[in-house]
Amino acid sequence: MKKIITLGEVMLRLSPPGNQRFLQTKSLEVEFGGSEANVGAALAYWGMDVAHVTAFPDHEIGWAAKAQLRKNGIRTDFVPLTPGRMGVYFLEHGAMQRSSQIIYDRADSSFSQLDPKALNWDEILDGADWLHWSGITPALSQNCADLTLEGLKKAKEKGVKVSGDLNYRSNLWQYGKAPFEIMPELMEHTHVMIAGTRDFNQCLNENVKSFSEAKKLAFSRFKNLEYIVKTDRESHSSSHNTMAGALYTPDNTFSSRKYDLTHIVDRVGTGDAFAGGLIYGLLTMEPADAIEFAMAAGAMKHSVPGDILLCSLQEVHDLANGESVGKIKR
Amino acid sequence: MKKIITLGEVMLRLSPPGNQRFLQTKSLEVEFGGSEANVGAALAYWGMDVAHVTAFPDHEIGWAAKAQLRKNGIRTDFVPLTPGRMGVYFLEHGAMQRSSQIIYDRADSSFSQLDPKALNWDEILDGADWLHWSGITPALSQNCADLTLEGLKKAKEKGVKVSGDLNYRSNLWQYGKAPFEIMPELMEHTHVMIAGTRDFNQCLNENVKSFSEAKKLAFSRFKNLEYIVKTDRESHSSSHNTMAGALYTPDNTFSSRKYDLTHIVDRVGTGDAFAGGLIYGLLTMEPADAIEFAMAAGAMKHSVPGDILLCSLQEVHDLANGESVGKIKR
Amino acid sequence: MKKIITLGEVMLRLSPPGNQRFLQTKSLEVEFGGSEANVGAALAYWGMDVAHVTAFPDHEIGWAAKAQLRKNGIRTDFVPLTPGRMGVYFLEHGAMQRSSQIIYDRADSSFSQLDPKALNWDEILDGADWLHWSGITPALSQNCADLTLEGLKKAKEKGVKVSGDLNYRSNLWQYGKAPFEIMPELMEHTHVMIAGTRDFNQCLNENVKSFSEAKKLAFSRFKNLEYIVKTDRESHSSSHNTMAGALYTPDNTFSSRKYDLTHIVDRVGTGDAFAGGLIYGLLTMEPADAIEFAMAAGAMKHSVPGDILLCSLQEVHDLANGESVGKIKR
Amino acid sequence: MKKIITLGEVMLRLSPPGNQRFLQTKSLEVEFGGSEANVGAALAYWGMDVAHVTAFPDHEIGWAAKAQLRKNGIRTDFVPLTPGRMGVYFLEHGAMQRSSQIIYDRADSSFSQLDPKALNWDEILDGADWLHWSGITPALSQNCADLTLEGLKKAKEKGVKVSGDLNYRSNLWQYGKAPFEIMPELMEHTHVMIAGTRDFNQCLNENVKSFSEAKKLAFSRFKNLEYIVKTDRESHSSSHNTMAGALYTPDNTFSSRKYDLTHIVDRVGTGDAFAGGLIYGLLTMEPADAIEFAMAAGAMKHSVPGDILLCSLQEVHDLANGESVGKIKR
Amino acid sequence: MKKIITLGEVMLRLSPPGNQRFLQTKSLEVEFGGSEANVGAALAYWGMDVAHVTAFPDHEIGWAAKAQLRKNGIRTDFVPLTPGRMGVYFLEHGAMQRSSQIIYDRADSSFSQLDPKALNWDEILDGADWLHWSGITPALSQNCADLTLEGLKKAKEKGVKVSGDLNYRSNLWQYGKAPFEIMPELMEHTHVMIAGTRDFNQCLNENVKSFSEAKKLAFSRFKNLEYIVKTDRESHSSSHNTMAGALYTPDNTFSSRKYDLTHIVDRVGTGDAFAGGLIYGLLTMEPADAIEFAMAAGAMKHSVPGDILLCSLQEVHDLANGESVGKIKR
Amino acid sequence: MKKIITLGEVMLRLSPPGNQRFLQTKSLEVEFGGSEANVGAALAYWGMDVAHVTAFPDHEIGWAAKAQLRKNGIRTDFVPLTPGRMGVYFLEHGAMQRSSQIIYDRADSSFSQLDPKALNWDEILDGADWLHWSGITPALSQNCADLTLEGLKKAKEKGVKVSGDLNYRSNLWQYGKAPFEIMPELMEHTHVMIAGTRDFNQCLNENVKSFSEAKKLAFSRFKNLEYIVKTDRESHSSSHNTMAGALYTPDNTFSSRKYDLTHIVDRVGTGDAFAGGLIYGLLTMEPADAIEFAMAAGAMKHSVPGDILLCSLQEVHDLANGESVGKIKR
Repeated sequence: MKKIITLGEVMLRLSPPGNQRFLQTKSLEVEFGGSEANVGAALAYWGMDVAHVTAFPDHEIGWAAKAQLRKNGIRTDFVPLTPGRMGVYFLEHGAMQRSSQIIYDRADSSFSQLDPKALNWDEILDGADWLHWSGITPALSQNCADLTLEGLKKAKEKGVKVSGDLNYRSNLWQYGKAPFEIMPELMEHTHVMIAGTRDFNQCLNENVKSFSEAKKLAFSRFKNLEYIVKTDRESHSSSHNTMAGALYTPDNTFSSRKYDLTHIVDRVGTGDAFAGGLIYGLLTMEPADAIEFAMAAGAMKHSVPGDILLCSLQEVHDLANGESVGKIKR
Repeated sequence: MKKIITLGEVMLRLSPPGNQRFLQTKSLEVEFGGSEANVGAALAYWGMDVAHVTAFPDHEIGWAAKAQLRKNGIRTDFVPLTPGRMGVYFLEHGAMQRSSQIIYDRADSSFSQLDPKALNWDEILDGADWLHWSGITPALSQNCADLTLEGLKKAKEKGVKVSGDLNYRSNLWQYGKAPFEIMPELMEHTHVMIAGTRDFNQCLNENVKSFSEAKKLAFSRFKNLEYIVKTDRESHSSSHNTMAGALYTPDNTFSSRKYDLTHIVDRVGTGDAFAGGLIYGLLTMEPADAIEFAMAAGAMKHSVPGDILLCSLQEVHDLANGESVGKIKR
Repeated sequence: MKKIITLGEVMLRLSPPGNQRFLQTKSLEVEFGGSEANVGAALAYWGMDVAHVTAFPDHEIGWAAKAQLRKNGIRTDFVPLTPGRMGVYFLEHGAMQRSSQIIYDRADSSFSQLDPKALNWDEILDGADWLHWSGITPALSQNCADLTLEGLKKAKEKGVKVSGDLNYRSNLWQYGKAPFEIMPELMEHTHVMIAGTRDFNQCLNENVKSFSEAKKLAFSRFKNLEYIVKTDRESHSSSHNTMAGALYTPDNTFSSRKYDLTHIVDRVGTGDAFAGGLIYGLLTMEPADAIEFAMAAGAMKHSVPGDILLCSLQEVHDLANGESVGKIKR
Repeated sequence: MKKIITLGEVMLRLSPPGNQRFLQTKSLEVEFGGSEANVGAALAYWGMDVAHVTAFPDHEIGWAAKAQLRKNGIRTDFVPLTPGRMGVYFLEHGAMQRSSQIIYDRADSSFSQLDPKALNWDEILDGADWLHWSGITPALSQNCADLTLEGLKKAKEKGVKVSGDLNYRSNLWQYGKAPFEIMPELMEHTHVMIAGTRDFNQCLNENVKSFSEAKKLAFSRFKNLEYIVKTDRESHSSSHNTMAGALYTPDNTFSSRKYDLTHIVDRVGTGDAFAGGLIYGLLTMEPADAIEFAMAAGAMKHSVPGDILLCSLQEVHDLANGESVGKIKR
Repeated sequence: MKKIITLGEVMLRLSPPGNQRFLQTKSLEVEFGGSEANVGAALAYWGMDVAHVTAFPDHEIGWAAKAQLRKNGIRTDFVPLTPGRMGVYFLEHGAMQRSSQIIYDRADSSFSQLDPKALNWDEILDGADWLHWSGITPALSQNCADLTLEGLKKAKEKGVKVSGDLNYRSNLWQYGKAPFEIMPELMEHTHVMIAGTRDFNQCLNENVKSFSEAKKLAFSRFKNLEYIVKTDRESHSSSHNTMAGALYTPDNTFSSRKYDLTHIVDRVGTGDAFAGGLIYGLLTMEPADAIEFAMAAGAMKHSVPGDILLCSLQEVHDLANGESVGKIKR
Repeated sequence: MKKIITLGEVMLRLSPPGNQRFLQTKSLEVEFGGSEANVGAALAYWGMDVAHVTAFPDHEIGWAAKAQLRKNGIRTDFVPLTPGRMGVYFLEHGAMQRSSQIIYDRADSSFSQLDPKALNWDEILDGADWLHWSGITPALSQNCADLTLEGLKKAKEKGVKVSGDLNYRSNLWQYGKAPFEIMPELMEHTHVMIAGTRDFNQCLNENVKSFSEAKKLAFSRFKNLEYIVKTDRESHSSSHNTMAGALYTPDNTFSSRKYDLTHIVDRVGTGDAFAGGLIYGLLTMEPADAIEFAMAAGAMKHSVPGDILLCSLQEVHDLANGESVGKIKR
């Protein structure tokens, strides 16, 4: 059992049941999710010792968010209840040729306003094996950018392995900074980057044309970087995607099998499940197995409602090994 | 913004949730729908000024039906509350190889008993750009046939463009008239007909063998006819259809792309969404774009529960243009 | 109308709604099902006179189980209320690459403890045309093995045709006997066996390598055996299977068409629907039609929630004949 | 176990969940109910051999209605599937000072159109101990009035005891006859009448001022009449009533205790539960116990959702005896 | 039919079903409500011509809010789609001794940021008979205070009658102004004030001890003031209140009967239903009848889920007159 | 923050929604509950450091039970996954005069089969302030009796305060021992007993007639006993109880106010909420306040669905102090 720290905002997710649109629904299903906590939940479910770092408002909905982290097996020692709103996102599930829609309502959340001084990274990272962050956090506010950097610096100091999902989102970064003013320093301290060409271009203010070029650039610029990881997804419709993953070292490429993902149940959190699988894989397997495990975790998530991959180690291993897929297990 | 009048019965639709059969359900989901009002709702959602002409019984369920029209953005100035029942249809959603089933319970509805004198077509059509009717209305009762004819005559007088979805249904026409005794006169006043070979044969008491023959016959017989429009659908199963549309002038054919419609959510109202898209297209686009827009609207409807296409102009345009299908829009 | 007797345990089935996992559900949907009663329900729905033989505990849930049999059109004259638990099975529906899971909680059920003397087979089989049993029953307890044998002996005495679904399940047979100590004598009295190679090997303590070998063995060993029936299923995923059936006499093979089963609604009970269709077919059709009817029934069940095939004769015939699949029936 | 025949229409009942109004509901809960079948269901649940006489349309919803009767333990040997609609009633549950609302949509039901010749009363009443009818049936149509009369005549011939719930409803009797043209002859053959002053006045075209006068009149006019039974209810609100029952012979009055009925769950069918309890009581107890049992059954029904009293003999006896009310039974 | 304008924020209301707490719910029921629009909806339902003035964000949830106003019969001509959030309030229904809880999340809503210049009060009030506002609006932002004042000035200019529900709420007024800096000028233009002692004290920066003193003060200070209206509520528990209303002129007091409100379904919006009833009453009745009608409306609302009184004129009149309370209306 | 250990079985609780009976439900709501863990959950919610000692089967439902404990804020360090079933109880909520019903299905649960050697009480009680047990545990099996005794002995050794809810249940004690053979030794080590006259009689094989006699007996026999606590409940109906609590020392009696509990939402777990309140009270208050706090907690629980009191310290204090009961808290 490894000790893993994840950092990031957790939002209240509200979605119309089934295939209903916002315009017709009379109820909204409640989940709690956030990219990095979703990663942590997958890892906790597989037996890792995971603590998530975030903040919630001090009212019943904030308490419910915290309780849900606990239910998912995540330690909440570093989750203060602070001023601010509960971040919300409204999710309408797409179907067929109709796209899924997300309406974010996360401005002024408790986490985005969290004072970096409120976190004692020395204590948080005590005994930790791994720290996971994503590009969403520094995109939320200067406070969030600052506290991420502090965490990464302390991780370096303590020799904690760091993974970062660059995850550039154009509708964030509203607080006056561009990604390339913030991200490069964070990337300096990151050993595993999940990123595609566009992420590298936006974060580094570059304009390279191909992933191989981006990869070369990143490995040459960031000396601590050990792995770049990328997924390739084709969206035939909201109900049908195909997807594969690949893990790159400066010298090698490890590719997963390609999955045909049809009858999709919930598309959200599939990248996070992949990232969780990746961390698990890199902590316990050879690279070729790690990317296969990661992609199986990502594929599996498409079948589970909510933000979180609720699949056992056995289930992910079975899929990675191509065993007994789609049978009834009695 | 154009002013559009739609005419027809609106029924209470009751269907078991999900894939349940009538025999096992403990609840029925409530929608209100009717072919022509469905057309109107799509148009209203896209910003057109739509008024629907119908009638409801004067009790809470009739009021609810009227409120639902308003919610859909339809004006209800011409919706009297009159004696008679609320028309009902029970819909069981099919799945896989199992067909959908509809049990109609619409006899003696307020609309079917509506006195043609109760409608002031001069006022209804005042300033209107378009009138849409379907072959379901004259099939309900002599009253309904009469009021349709009065509307169409007044439309001619006022120079209002008219579309008609011939929509022959063998289980209607119970009041002693055959379609060919009623429909030809209505078709005389119609500029755009949505119809296939069987519709023409039944309405005109003909027996032509091919659509091209039917089309020729129609254009030669009806001098006001500008467009014939038709959809071709293949039902591989209740969950999987393919479909394309075509628009015919006497001299030209404009065909849409063909859609692969799998993971179908709700098959009902897809023809009405197509008709709504068609009217929108013909009012604002060239024919080739109009049929593409119409078919995109029809395709999109398969993904939305209920009778009504609740998709924005942007969404339909995106699909017609093949853009960002099946992605998550944030 | 033929008189058919079915024998076996009926359990309370509890499953999370939709695609939810046990870990996240707040409610469980209630069905009642058991392999042999599922067969009986299909037959009753098609107009046969069916009585099921089982036992329930004498409390409200046992009464509910009995009421559900009645609702399904099954006579419950031979369903005593006796000491013991209500057998339960928890079913989590799979989706995509994620398998369905069943957690059985059936130990010490009223049926498994039923005293063979409590059943008067002479009365039960009075006027009966057919008796159906499965390999699940003798796997539950010595009592159940004994009462099955008594029923089969009495059937032989009265000239009642017998079908048996061998259905070997490794997680049963916990009471100290191996299948080969019990099953051969039961198979002696069985005219129609639904079984694959593994079933024959387990029940007869053999180790044949192919179905054709198993079939040969069975026909040579069991002199009363008239038909062996088998389904072949490929599980591409929990949402997509392909399946075909075949009926074997010592000299002939009758094969059904192969069905592409995608968008699966409920995988449970499909073998029972097939068995029900088979019995109906063998009672009323030629073998080639019977296997086609059986396979259409089995295919249809994949689209119906719950354990029971709730499809009319007309629907199954239409599918067997390839008519109007996936249309809206009005 | 006595054999009891009940006669009357069974409708599909559709009601918004909880306290919702028709105007706001997105779903309707499904029950099947009808005054006389409700009586039969209570009796069947208590172990009586009950057959209900009615008719349903031959489609899935008619089949579902019939299946529900079976589930309730009622024999359906005399339930033909005949032309006509499924009768429907829409029920909105009241709460507090807001009244419950029923919108009837029962015109042209299969039962109301049932040909009296379709029923073989000789067979139906063979071996019967009791026949129960209500004033709703003869109010539906001439056919229904006729078939009720035939049943009652045959009951007299065979010495079957008859109870009738006069149940005058002003919104029925639409087919051209007044109650007093039909009811008196039916009352001639009735031994137990459930009725209040208004019922007697309407059915007999009288205008007596008090119940005691009405009672005197009835006993003097109807020589077969043994008991008159009446309930007295005060409606403080939809959620709170008080209620008591009384049983009258020409010479005696037997009164039940008075129940304080607050937190009402479902008001519908409470009179039918009372009637069921009355029949059970008169068949098995002394009059004083019978009215107490009847009233306990009626009181209990206020706590059960749906039309049917789903309470065991033990539960009703316990309440009648004032035992362990409102405890948790483990 | 009178023409009535209402002004104020409409929020998305999200509440756990039934009696669930935020901490345990898996879904939230969706309603849209706001004090003044609730007033408008009641009036529209009774046949008044109502237009509501507010603003929503331009996304699907904003559109849904606007559609809901239309469904409620309210004209939305003056509802621009503008930048900002959708205001949200989370409501947990209390029960028994447990209080209801509201978590407001309304900061930065589109309405609170609405530019006063975006509203053309001359057009809005054209032909209007009545304008209704509440003290919530000027408490939201300076913009909202300004646009309220502009509306009231224009109303004065046009001779439109004005009612205001002072409704002081301590958790609002966050934008740097105290109520007494804003409210007095608004009150100047108001003819009917709904207010209690605390409201007057807060709005006028006074500290009077009794309502009669407050009333005297208000009538002496505000020369346009015609009526002060007040409700008195005792909360025995969340499920049981008693309540009465009174209408004061400088010289007279008109008191309603006192209602015993037990089995409360939804406490929210009861004051708004009262206000709606009051406006209806003052427009169409004598004061003594008006306050009785208002209180009946307010009482009735306790039985209806959601923010809106969905009760017909007939229902409110019946209750005001004490007729047929708690019966089943067929 | 005190450290508290609770010990006992946690079951899967399945109940029909709302007021439905087992016979009519199509779904069962899922909760997890057990008397002692319910006590622990209340204490954890109020900020205590609570660990619960139990065992679950090693499958998804066992994992879900464990996750629910975590969600409730309870540490699960001492919850092994062991062979055996998941204990189940089926709960039907009563209403009005109809009683609630519980069908237990807990035989052979993992907890009941737990090997006492599997628990390291020295570690469990390390640093603990309080241990809570109930009479249910020793009633389940010899193993359970043994492990309870071991825990109590170790508590004595370590000076941990012990409370026990004697809770005699006649339908337990099936393993061959009578309560009086087991309970006295456990009571020896218990400082706070929640018990009534019947509990004392059954556990001590006595037959005293009054509580004061029982109290005297207990205090004289058990030298470690500091407090006896008792609740008095009157069940007017399932929807309406009255209840008060009292705390006894050898010399004093402290009585709580008496609560009128009407509109009951969920009766289950109210005694556990009381016990939780009692422990909280005894740890932090004077006896007179403790019993008032305990009774407020118990009263509050009647309003919360599920087994667990999900009410904040503030809410319980407010009720104990009689503040703002039944208001809307904004």
